[in-house]
Amino acid sequence: MQLKLNMIKMFRLTLLSAATLRTSASTLRRNSFLKGAFRPLSTAPVSDHYEKRLTEQSMCQYLRHMEYAVRGKVVIKADEINAKLKESPKGTYPFDHIVYTNIGNPHSVGQKDLTWPRQVLALCDLPDEYGVDHPLAEEIFPVDAIARAKVIKKALNFHGTGAYTHSQGPLLFRQEICRFIEKRDGLQEGAVDPSDIYMTNGASSAIEMILNALIADTTSGVMIPIPQYPIYSATISRYGGQQVGYYLDEKKGWDLNVAELERSLANAKKHGIDVNSLVLINPGNPTGQVLQPSTVREIVKFCSENNLVLLADEVYQENVYAAGSEFYSCRQAAHDTGLDDADALELVSFHSTSKGLLGECGRRGGYMELLGFDPKIKAQLYKLASSHLCSNVPGQIMTSLMVNGPKEGDASYESYEEEKQEIYDSLKRRAKIVSEGFNKIEGFSCETAEGSMYCFPKIEMPLGAIDFARANGVTPDTLYALSLLENTGICVVPASGFGQEKGRYGFRTTFLPAEEEMVHVVEAVKNHYEKFCKQFE
Amino acid sequence: MQLKLNMIKMFRLTLLSAATLRTSASTLRRNSFLKGAFRPLSTAPVSDHYEKRLTEQSMCQYLRHMEYAVRGKVVIKADEINAKLKESPKGTYPFDHIVYTNIGNPHSVGQKDLTWPRQVLALCDLPDEYGVDHPLAEEIFPVDAIARAKVIKKALNFHGTGAYTHSQGPLLFRQEICRFIEKRDGLQEGAVDPSDIYMTNGASSAIEMILNALIADTTSGVMIPIPQYPIYSATISRYGGQQVGYYLDEKKGWDLNVAELERSLANAKKHGIDVNSLVLINPGNPTGQVLQPSTVREIVKFCSENNLVLLADEVYQENVYAAGSEFYSCRQAAHDTGLDDADALELVSFHSTSKGLLGECGRRGGYMELLGFDPKIKAQLYKLASSHLCSNVPGQIMTSLMVNGPKEGDASYESYEEEKQEIYDSLKRRAKIVSEGFNKIEGFSCETAEGSMYCFPKIEMPLGAIDFARANGVTPDTLYALSLLENTGICVVPASGFGQEKGRYGFRTTFLPAEEEMVHVVEAVKNHYEKFCKQFE
Repeated sequence: MQLKLNMIKMFRLTLLSAATLRTSASTLRRNSFLKGAFRPLSTAPVSDHYEKRLTEQSMCQYLRHMEYAVRGKVVIKADEINAKLKESPKGTYPFDHIVYTNIGNPHSVGQKDLTWPRQVLALCDLPDEYGVDHPLAEEIFPVDAIARAKVIKKALNFHGTGAYTHSQGPLLFRQEICRFIEKRDGLQEGAVDPSDIYMTNGASSAIEMILNALIADTTSGVMIPIPQYPIYSATISRYGGQQVGYYLDEKKGWDLNVAELERSLANAKKHGIDVNSLVLINPGNPTGQVLQPSTVREIVKFCSENNLVLLADEVYQENVYAAGSEFYSCRQAAHDTGLDDADALELVSFHSTSKGLLGECGRRGGYMELLGFDPKIKAQLYKLASSHLCSNVPGQIMTSLMVNGPKEGDASYESYEEEKQEIYDSLKRRAKIVSEGFNKIEGFSCETAEGSMYCFPKIEMPLGAIDFARANGVTPDTLYALSLLENTGICVVPASGFGQEKGRYGFRTTFLPAEEEMVHVVEAVKNHYEKFCKQFE
Repeated sequence: MQLKLNMIKMFRLTLLSAATLRTSASTLRRNSFLKGAFRPLSTAPVSDHYEKRLTEQSMCQYLRHMEYAVRGKVVIKADEINAKLKESPKGTYPFDHIVYTNIGNPHSVGQKDLTWPRQVLALCDLPDEYGVDHPLAEEIFPVDAIARAKVIKKALNFHGTGAYTHSQGPLLFRQEICRFIEKRDGLQEGAVDPSDIYMTNGASSAIEMILNALIADTTSGVMIPIPQYPIYSATISRYGGQQVGYYLDEKKGWDLNVAELERSLANAKKHGIDVNSLVLINPGNPTGQVLQPSTVREIVKFCSENNLVLLADEVYQENVYAAGSEFYSCRQAAHDTGLDDADALELVSFHSTSKGLLGECGRRGGYMELLGFDPKIKAQLYKLASSHLCSNVPGQIMTSLMVNGPKEGDASYESYEEEKQEIYDSLKRRAKIVSEGFNKIEGFSCETAEGSMYCFPKIEMPLGAIDFARANGVTPDTLYALSLLENTGICVVPASGFGQEKGRYGFRTTFLPAEEEMVHVVEAVKNHYEKFCKQFE
């Protein structure tokens, strides 16, 4: 019986094809649910005696119940449609390609790689005689790329990119990261210690390491924003901890206020949760807000006063577009409030090569920077890092290039800056096109994306859609996102995957595809929404 | 008081300097222990009100008690000495450099990277106009490297190496892995399904994913060989499961027999442990044995009959040196016993770019291949992979190149095969030099390294050393390894880090440094051991 129910659930999600919009919801309700529901699942023949040992019932239940929306249900469906479109581009769907706006993956939607970092990377991978020492090297590669590759080869002890490095990353790279942070935050040279830097496979790995250490048992609580980026909820679930949500204020452009933090913390304590940390995402994902310096300082003070480890997700620090907005780091806030000297704060900040203007997601480069951590915890984190041996070396190199680019006067300086500027300007225009465009749709409201790569519009959900979704065991915004996908080819993530206030519905979209594509997206979303409302009115 | 005890412990390990060998053990016992023990720990000033939130006491205790010997105590000490030697190479120590034999990291000890894979990799990273389409491309790069880079660019949907891929890896790469397995194991084409392949950041990541799923609670048990590679013990600890050891038979060249598996399983069940899986490492790490096909088939049958998921660590499959030995995979054993058809086995096999003849450790490339897993578990593993988005793309490319190298007639075929042959021949000679050399030392016995990159000699430990070590809270072979390090600069891993029978002592060493270096290592180990025995007789 359980299996039958699961099968019904599975097939419920396939019913929102393009054709369904032409039918009324009530007809759908009568006829479509069970279509195909009794098609046997494709499984291999099972021998008489053998029962699978690893099943959803026997597996780790924390992992089983973990959710990760960014590549969840809607995206799996989009990939299926994409595969079908490749087989027969015409006829099946009223569009010829999927517009993936579900994930901050710039290069997959047309953003070009910056040239200089790739040239350095290639030279680091090539054996000397085929790269830096090749007689034609200077005909293909700019001299500053060759020079930098030589510096990096030295930093890698001339072992090349094929050897494991120190588990936290090569010292020279970590020193470059320190200088970058000091310069960014106006700190004196030497203020950041290379032993506090851990280079990781993207920020995700770093987040996992810290949460692994923080979650001691099922009473351990981590404060996370609502909405949040789901790596936090997923990883907290996976380690068996408690998510303690605090709400961002949508009406105030997703701002954050200390009163809400206090409410949330008090409420968790009342329920017996041992809250030990707080996640701040700035610039916001999925919300796109850029916090004011005064707000960041307040949060830092709140964490210090309440003895909470502050996890600062600052991977979008280069992605700030709004006039008057500027990125202001938690590290700088700690400095400006004197909390970095007083040893009165435990702060970890995450950064990554995947975002900013590099957009080097496939590289899996990133780092975390610790401040005020117990030396024994640093040793524990080193031990954990060492059990993975080290993060991937090309990712480490890209991180080094991110924090230490060409300088004025270098051969590649101008072209590098131009390439960056072009990407930045276009992102800025797209942020405007998308948030303003959505905001104009009747039934939508969308805060301005001051930063990051996302908009998080709120939509009025027709009551019929809410009922229909509930009856089918999906959230209303999953119903909406699937309908949008199957009718327009646009792949967004339902807002429920990030968390939101009860009764709110919406989705997250990146504004990464090309500008002309984003204009089309806004138009298509508008047209689809009208039909969707009609269908479910 | 606790702090003082910890401090004493910490400083106990610094006492085994070169000078100590010239003193008698008893003098040491009287005088040296507490030297420096009351030197204050270097910590930042602590403010009045703030206590660290994340401490060894408050952190996740599973993680706290996890051990990882390969980069543990002895290696940390080696790195300290290495740093000192760089500052002042003369005088402090009776050697001028550290010989790192603690870790299978071939490129760090002189093994050269294979040229062709690096050329392809560089071309994949370079923008087309600076790489595959550059007018001078064919002057620097062989035509088959250019052609392959184009194929890979297509496999990456022309998004380049900077985009996230499918969370299991691009389909084309997974198809190449399937064809590689089918060819290796004599299976028909199509026998291995790309949906059963998960590309990962090295094998370590894959091992972690599976153990995460398998360890449901503190009664979940995983059978591991003794001795074993410590990623298993470490990860099982970290997820709170139980290590269920089975002994390899040193007298029979570290062979494995089913009677011992049965004893171990029965014993664990008696203690209430829910054993759900078994780890097999073949070729062995740290033991170097290569199992006979009949043995592998017996283990596969044992797992099927006892309903245990079989975790096959086969990362050394290319590293087989002994005459008459050949790698025989668990997948082939499943096929040859008919257990792949009958759906009567759950098998996962791990592979990596870090070992073999590539030795591309820094790349963090690898994959796992599933057989017979519940489709819902496959979906769960996809979800877990997707929460990390994807493994690093250069690592994926290296994996593709590992399983699908140049073919006869290709421009690079001959040079590639020659480079591989040279590395293989030298590894084979070094395996012999080291295992035979150790075996000749009075007080040592060392099984022949039939495969992998390691020897795991057993040494007679002087009774004085055992007493001394116990009195100082370290294992006798840690005492030995630290003494070896401080007197000769040779860095090995104490055998206790891998597990061994009670009363056995020894260490693991790679045979990766150059042949002339390995000759010196054997000689230096011999001379040191004589002095060590004299010191502790």
